[in-house]
Amino acid sequence: MTQFLHADRLFPAAEPARSIARDLYPAVKDLPLVSPHGHTDPSWFANNQRFADPAALFLTPDHYVLRMLRSRGLSYDDLGVPRKDGKPVADPRTAWRLFAANYHLFAGTPSRLWVDHSLQFAFGIDTQLSSATADAIYDQIAARLGDPDLLPRAILDRANVEVIATTEFALDPLTHHQSMLGQGLIGRVRTTYRPDDVTDPSRAAIVQNLQKLGELTGEDTANWAGLINAHRQRRQTFRRFGAVATDHGVPTAMTADLPLVEKQALLDKVLAGKHDAAEAELFRAQMLTEMALLSVEDGMVMQIHAGSRRNTDPLTFGERGPDMGADIPGPTDYVGGLRALLGRCGNEPNLRIIMFVLDETNYARELAPMAGYWPSLLVGPPWWFHDSPQGIRRYLDQVLETAGFYNLAGFNDDTRALLSIPARHDVWRREVCGFLAHWVGEHRLSKSSALEIARHLSYQAAKDAYKIA
Amino acid sequence: MTQFLHADRLFPAAEPARSIARDLYPAVKDLPLVSPHGHTDPSWFANNQRFADPAALFLTPDHYVLRMLRSRGLSYDDLGVPRKDGKPVADPRTAWRLFAANYHLFAGTPSRLWVDHSLQFAFGIDTQLSSATADAIYDQIAARLGDPDLLPRAILDRANVEVIATTEFALDPLTHHQSMLGQGLIGRVRTTYRPDDVTDPSRAAIVQNLQKLGELTGEDTANWAGLINAHRQRRQTFRRFGAVATDHGVPTAMTADLPLVEKQALLDKVLAGKHDAAEAELFRAQMLTEMALLSVEDGMVMQIHAGSRRNTDPLTFGERGPDMGADIPGPTDYVGGLRALLGRCGNEPNLRIIMFVLDETNYARELAPMAGYWPSLLVGPPWWFHDSPQGIRRYLDQVLETAGFYNLAGFNDDTRALLSIPARHDVWRREVCGFLAHWVGEHRLSKSSALEIARHLSYQAAKDAYKIA
Amino acid sequence: MTQFLHADRLFPAAEPARSIARDLYPAVKDLPLVSPHGHTDPSWFANNQRFADPAALFLTPDHYVLRMLRSRGLSYDDLGVPRKDGKPVADPRTAWRLFAANYHLFAGTPSRLWVDHSLQFAFGIDTQLSSATADAIYDQIAARLGDPDLLPRAILDRANVEVIATTEFALDPLTHHQSMLGQGLIGRVRTTYRPDDVTDPSRAAIVQNLQKLGELTGEDTANWAGLINAHRQRRQTFRRFGAVATDHGVPTAMTADLPLVEKQALLDKVLAGKHDAAEAELFRAQMLTEMALLSVEDGMVMQIHAGSRRNTDPLTFGERGPDMGADIPGPTDYVGGLRALLGRCGNEPNLRIIMFVLDETNYARELAPMAGYWPSLLVGPPWWFHDSPQGIRRYLDQVLETAGFYNLAGFNDDTRALLSIPARHDVWRREVCGFLAHWVGEHRLSKSSALEIARHLSYQAAKDAYKIA
Repeated sequence: MTQFLHADRLFPAAEPARSIARDLYPAVKDLPLVSPHGHTDPSWFANNQRFADPAALFLTPDHYVLRMLRSRGLSYDDLGVPRKDGKPVADPRTAWRLFAANYHLFAGTPSRLWVDHSLQFAFGIDTQLSSATADAIYDQIAARLGDPDLLPRAILDRANVEVIATTEFALDPLTHHQSMLGQGLIGRVRTTYRPDDVTDPSRAAIVQNLQKLGELTGEDTANWAGLINAHRQRRQTFRRFGAVATDHGVPTAMTADLPLVEKQALLDKVLAGKHDAAEAELFRAQMLTEMALLSVEDGMVMQIHAGSRRNTDPLTFGERGPDMGADIPGPTDYVGGLRALLGRCGNEPNLRIIMFVLDETNYARELAPMAGYWPSLLVGPPWWFHDSPQGIRRYLDQVLETAGFYNLAGFNDDTRALLSIPARHDVWRREVCGFLAHWVGEHRLSKSSALEIARHLSYQAAKDAYKIA
Repeated sequence: MTQFLHADRLFPAAEPARSIARDLYPAVKDLPLVSPHGHTDPSWFANNQRFADPAALFLTPDHYVLRMLRSRGLSYDDLGVPRKDGKPVADPRTAWRLFAANYHLFAGTPSRLWVDHSLQFAFGIDTQLSSATADAIYDQIAARLGDPDLLPRAILDRANVEVIATTEFALDPLTHHQSMLGQGLIGRVRTTYRPDDVTDPSRAAIVQNLQKLGELTGEDTANWAGLINAHRQRRQTFRRFGAVATDHGVPTAMTADLPLVEKQALLDKVLAGKHDAAEAELFRAQMLTEMALLSVEDGMVMQIHAGSRRNTDPLTFGERGPDMGADIPGPTDYVGGLRALLGRCGNEPNLRIIMFVLDETNYARELAPMAGYWPSLLVGPPWWFHDSPQGIRRYLDQVLETAGFYNLAGFNDDTRALLSIPARHDVWRREVCGFLAHWVGEHRLSKSSALEIARHLSYQAAKDAYKIA
Repeated sequence: MTQFLHADRLFPAAEPARSIARDLYPAVKDLPLVSPHGHTDPSWFANNQRFADPAALFLTPDHYVLRMLRSRGLSYDDLGVPRKDGKPVADPRTAWRLFAANYHLFAGTPSRLWVDHSLQFAFGIDTQLSSATADAIYDQIAARLGDPDLLPRAILDRANVEVIATTEFALDPLTHHQSMLGQGLIGRVRTTYRPDDVTDPSRAAIVQNLQKLGELTGEDTANWAGLINAHRQRRQTFRRFGAVATDHGVPTAMTADLPLVEKQALLDKVLAGKHDAAEAELFRAQMLTEMALLSVEDGMVMQIHAGSRRNTDPLTFGERGPDMGADIPGPTDYVGGLRALLGRCGNEPNLRIIMFVLDETNYARELAPMAGYWPSLLVGPPWWFHDSPQGIRRYLDQVLETAGFYNLAGFNDDTRALLSIPARHDVWRREVCGFLAHWVGEHRLSKSSALEIARHLSYQAAKDAYKIA
C-alpha cells in the first residue's frame, strides 16, 4: 500500500509548493502539542496503568475503525466489541486478525494514516498490517505494553503534549481529576464542563439527572434561578480541576432567550416529563444562552459541537449503546441558530464561543462570515469526519478568506485514542504547511509570513483560543 | 477549440502526477465496460436496426445538448425536437447545422467531450464540428450509418461492453427483452425494474396503472398485501430478463414504515384519487421500504435516484413531454429520509442500496458517513450533471476519506446516447487515474495499490455492487 | 508579508499552467473595465470633489475591513465609524494607525489584495502598511488627495472604466444623475433601479414609501394596477439616466404569481400595516414577478441578489445603521423560489435575469442547471464574500461544466470603494486566466479558445449580459 510514512507525505507533489512545504514543516514539526478538546480517559493519566492488549488500544475503542469494518459486512461480535447483554464476543487476537485481514479497506482514509503513524511512533513498527503480519505485529505490541515508555503519562511525554483536556459531564464525580490534583497533574491535564446530561431533555434520565445536580450543589434545580446557580457552582468546581472550557453536543445550534416565566414553565414541563420534541429543543436552546451568560461571568470558553444525528441505528444502539459509529451529520443553521444568543450577549468582551460543524456548507456561508464579524466567535477546526487531509484542505479553502487566519481556534484532535494524538496533529501541521506553500507559490503570502502563520496554527492559536496561559 | 482528443487529456498537467497517471491509465483503458444503469432503448439491441440520421443519433435524444442550445435562445422547433401536437419541426440536416454553428457553446462541458469522443470512436472523425464542417460531417456520418459495424450490437462489441442494463417501468411488456431472450442476448443486456409508474401517486395515471398491475399479475392491487405480491411477481418476471436491480426515481429520499392499517388507508386514498401532496410523498416513502423488504427476499439491488425536481418548465412539458432538460436538482436529506427504512431492515445481509444524489453537499455530510457504517449501503457514482471531470473530482475528494474505496459502486454511464457510453467510461477512468496519481504523488498510496484501486473502480466495483457474476 | 504585488500573483505556481496563465493574461489585463453593478456614490462623479482623508477612502466606508478589525476586538468607535447619536469617535489619523497596526489580520484575505493594489495603483505606494509605516503612508495619501489625477472622474479614466453603474432606490430623486446628464456623463455612468424601498414590507417606512411613490408618479399606489404603473414610470425615468438594469436585494428568491384579487388584498394589508412576516415574504415574492413582467415590456435586465440575512447584530444596527458588516448569508432555494416567475414568463425572449447567491451550494445544484436550460437566466458572478481568489475558483469549478462559459454574466465589482474597482477586476482576470490555464494544461481547451474565453469573461460577457451597446 503506501510507502510507509514517507517524509514528504501529504505535501504538495509539484514544485515549487513541495519545496516550500518542506521548508515550512521543520518549524512546526516539534512544537509541543496542545490538545484542548478530546475524549481520552482520565483514569489513564490518574492511574498510569498499562493498556490491556493491542485490540483494546487500536481496535475496539475506535469507532472510525469499527464502522468501516462493519460497513463491509464484518460484525461487531467478531470484532470483539462488548455487548450490553454480556454475551461473548471474539477474543482480542481473533478480532485483531480480522482487522488486519481487512486493512486494505482503509486505503486513503485518515484512520489508515493514524494507525500507521501510531504503530511507528509507539512501537517502531514499519511493516504493513495485513493477514501475513497480523500475529507478528500483535505479539510485538503485546510484548511492549508493560514497558515504562508505553504507560499513558510516558506517552504524553514522548508525544510532547503540553496540555490535554478530557471531557466530563456535569454530574461526573471527577474522581480521577481529584487524584491528578493530588499528584500535581492538573494544568497539564484538564477537565472540560460538558453539561449535556442536565441540559438535554431527550435523555431518558433527565429528571433524575436534574435532581442529582440539585443534590450535588445544594441548589433547588426545580427553580430556574436555582438551576443556573447549580451550573455556576459546577463550573467553578470544574475550574478547580483545570477546566478552561465548556462543551455542548447539540443536534442543532438553536438558541433562545425567553422571559423568566417561560423558562420556568419549560423547566416544569421537563421535570414533569411532559415535554415534546420541540420543547426539548427549546430547553436546549435556552440552556445554550444561559451557558453563554455564565461564560460572560466566569470567562470559560464555550464550545458548540452542533449537527450530529446520534445513534441512527437502533439495533446497534440497543445491543451496545452510543458511540458505535452510527452518528451521522445533518445540515446545520448557525446564523439562525445563534441569533438569540448573540443578540443577548454576542458583543460581551468576556464571551468566547468556538463553533464546530459537520456540515461543511457552513464554512464559507456561515462560520467564516460570523467569526469575521463577532468578536466573541471563533471558527473551530474541522471536526470528526473532516479532520482528514482533504477535509482540512476544504476547511482552509473555505474559511480563510473571510475569517482570516486569526479567527481560527487552531487544532483539536478530539480523539478517544491516545496514540492517535501525535498522528492527528502531524496531519494538521503537514496540511497547514502544504496549504500555505501553495499560497506562497502563488505570491499571496511571503515565506516569512507563512512561517509565522504555520507556527500560530500549529500551537499558539489553540492556547489563545482556549485561554491557556 | 481543444486539441482533438489529446492522449493526455484530463490527466494532471503538472509532474509528478502526470507521469503517474500515464502509468496507471494503460491498466484500465481497455477493461470491458460494465454499464449497470442506463436508459438506452432495448429495441436497438433486440432489432439491431440502423440509426436513422446523424441528428437522431447525436442531437434530438440528448437533453444535455438540447438544453444548452435552448439556454442560448435556440428553439426546440428549430432543433428538430418532436412536438406532441405533431406540428412540423426542423428537418435533421437543418437542425444539425444549427447545432454545429453553436458548438462553441459546449466549450468546457462534458457534452463536448462525449460528442468529440463519439465522433472519433464511431466514425473516425477528428475535425472540429462547426458551421464550416457541419455538412461534411453530417454526410460522413449519414453515409456510414448502415454499415455493419455501426449497428447497435456491433457498437456494443466495438465498445467492449460486457454488460448493459436498460430501465423499464413495472407495466412494461418487456417485448424487446423477450425477443432478446430468444436470441440469447439476455445476460449481456438486462432490464431493470423501475416501478415509479405504480409507486408514484403524483402521476396522472396512477389509478389505472395500479389496476393494470393487478391485471398483469392476477393480484388484487387494491389490497396492500396484493399490491406487494404483484410487485413480488413483477420483480421475478424482470429477473427472467436479466434484471439484477431495481431503480427508484424519487423527488426525495423519504421512507416510511407504517402499520398495515395505515398503509391500506393510504392506498385506499390513492385509489380514490383523494390524496394530497403529503400523502403522495408518504405513499412513495412507504413503497421504498416495501421495495427494500422485497430486496431482502429476492436479493435485487436497490437504486435510489433522489433529488430531481422534474419538469420545472410547464411550457416545454406541455409541448413535448418529460426529459426535455427542465429537470433541476434540489437539496436532499438522505439521513432523515432513509431512517425508517434502515431502522426496519438496514442490517439485513441480503439488502443492498445504492444511493445517488444531485445535491453534492450530501457526499461528505451524508452519503460517505452512511456508506461507511451500514453494510447495506453503497455510494453511487456522481450522477447526471455531475459525471463530468470536475464533478468526478469533487465526488472523489468528498467521499473517499470516510467511505473508503470499497464502499463505492463504481461507475454508471446512465445515458440515453449509445455512442457516449465508451466516452463516459473513459472520462471516469481518466479521472480516477488522475485522482490516484495525485495521492501517489503525495505518498498517500503506493503505485501498486493505486493500480489495484484503479482497476477496481473501472470494472470490478460495478460488477460487485450490482451482483453481476 | 506578501511580496508586494508580484507580477505572477494568483497564477498557478506549477508548470505548465503558470506559463499558460502568463501567456493569457496580457490579452485581458488592459481591456476596459465594465462595472455594471456596484454601490459607488454618484455624487463623486457628479461633483468630482476630492476625497476627505485616507480613512474616508480606505477604512470607514469598507465594511469588509471594518468587520475584520471588529472581529478581533477593535471597536467601531476607535475605528472612527460615525454613530447615529453623534457621539465622538476616533479621528481619521488615530483610526488609521489602529488599522495599520492590525494589518497582519488581513493576511490571505481579499481585502488585503484590494488595499495593497489600491495603494499602489492610486498612490504608487509599495511599502507594507504596518505600525511602522502608518503615519508615512497616511501623509503620502493625504498630500495627494487634492491632485487632479485623484479626483473621482480622473480615477475612472486612469482605471479605464468604460461603464459604471450606481444603484438607487425607487424614490431616489436622482439629483446627481440629473447633474451628470447635463454634463454628458450618463452612459459612462448609469443608475440602476433598486425598488426595495417600495417592495419590501419589512421596512419600517413601507407605507410612507408607497405613498411617496404615488406622489412621485401621480399614480394611485393603493391600487394594484396603479402600483405597477408607478413602477413602470419610475423604470422609464431611471432609463433616462442610463439604467439598463433593475436590482433586487431579497432575503430569499421566492416568487409568486397570485390572482389580482389576492394581490390587492395583500397590498391592502401592507398599507394597513397588518401584514405578518409570511405576508411580507409573499408581497416581495409577487413584486419580483411583477418586475419580471415589466422587464418583458421594457427590456431592463433584472438582478436578483438573494440570501443575505441583514443586520444580524441589533447593537450595531441601533448604534450605526445598516451595512456595518453584520449581514450574514443563509441557505437559498433558487429552484423552488423562481418557479412561479419562470412558469409565468421564463421563456419570454425579452426577459433576462441574473442570479446571485451567497450560498455556494447553489452553484452546481441550482444556478448552473437553471442557466443551462432557461434562455432568460444567467449565472451572476461570485458575490460579496466570494469574489475572492478561492471564491472565484470554487465558482468556476462548479458552474462551468453545466452552464458553459456563455451563460455567465461576466464580472461585477459590486463595491462601495472606488479605488478597489481595478483591483477587483484584476483579481477576476488573473483567476480566469489561471483557471483556463489549468484546463489548457489538461488538454480540455486549446490555447486559442482559452484566449477568446478569457477576453469574453473579462469584458464582453458583462456588456452582453447587461445589454450595454
